Amino acid sequence: MSLAPWRSILARALHRNRSLPYARYVQLATVRPNGKPANRTIVFRGFLEETNQLKFVTDDRSEKPKQIESCPWAEVCWYFPNTREQFRIAGKLSLIDHMNPEEKLQKARQQIWQELSDSARLQFAWSHPGQPRATADTFLPPAPSQTEPLEQFCLLLLEPNEVDHLELRGDPQNRYQYHLKETGWLVEEVNP
Amino acid sequence: MSLAPWRSILARALHRNRSLPYARYVQLATVRPNGKPANRTIVFRGFLEETNQLKFVTDDRSEKPKQIESCPWAEVCWYFPNTREQFRIAGKLSLIDHMNPEEKLQKARQQIWQELSDSARLQFAWSHPGQPRATADTFLPPAPSQTEPLEQFCLLLLEPNEVDHLELRGDPQNRYQYHLKETGWLVEEVNP
Repeated sequence: MSLAPWRSILARALHRNRSLPYARYVQLATVRPNGKPANRTIVFRGFLEETNQLKFVTDDRSEKPKQIESCPWAEVCWYFPNTREQFRIAGKLSLIDHMNPEEKLQKARQQIWQELSDSARLQFAWSHPGQPRATADTFLPPAPSQTEPLEQFCLLLLEPNEVDHLELRGDPQNRYQYHLKETGWLVEEVNP
Repeated sequence: MSLAPWRSILARALHRNRSLPYARYVQLATVRPNGKPANRTIVFRGFLEETNQLKFVTDDRSEKPKQIESCPWAEVCWYFPNTREQFRIAGKLSLIDHMNPEEKLQKARQQIWQELSDSARLQFAWSHPGQPRATADTFLPPAPSQTEPLEQFCLLLLEPNEVDHLELRGDPQNRYQYHLKETGWLVEEVNP
């Protein structure tokens, strides 16, 4: 595999915005089984080794798994405040749960669990997300294993096929679209 | 009409994050005619008078009008960095274009045009967004009228029916869901 041409541009944005912890927060849009859109903030956790796939984590009790099952397409919107630029990254999601048979992906799921902070891991042991508020003690579960992920912990992968990069700082603004074709990535400069 | 109960909570978040100009930027998710989601950053421009409808502006040459025509549902994701809280605001979009017959809405469209900065107004006179990059001179059009909106300028309204408010700062985090029922807004505390 070769690094997609937008990867170095995104890496530069991440570097120039590294003073802001929330520059790694992106908004992930999916489609609900009823056809309406859903949109939430999610933390970018790097790229899956030797691929252009973005890594995220999620709880399989959240709404995402059902949405991905009925429509695997997603679009991430990523705004970088320091450099005033936006990436819209569209592609297909895959959910890597504890049943996934692919060894390489199970390993990636385990590794990302190990990289989480203790408090981030603990949240996967909390009561069912989105259900009526549970009693306070259910939010004080015993600390889960630091090495073996809880069953509900999932790795979420986004395989991009379209990237739209907008630089608001240009005068006029600059905008580039990257399309994944059979022969590779094609770049086009478009009007903002 | 009565102010929805999430309005004061959102107003407080806006106030506490007012040091960040980009705290007024939100991510708007819609569904494309092909059923895939779209997601982009857009500037919040206040509420339509005497309603709970959020105001935005858009260009009718952008992709949004076609998406709204095939699916009017949207979800805004709004992350506030200073207070570490998120609002997910779901509802129905209406596009108020230059042909809209409702006087009150035409007036709101004209007023928001007048409130824009000169440079924001000028962008509506630029070449067709998303088309192959036009020559530099097409980005130097004569300044449009400060009072009469260009034809392609649209007011975009979001009428919310579901709001999900997450406070990351709580320990455990706090999360509230607001649902619009026939009798009014219903609030529910749920697990984060």
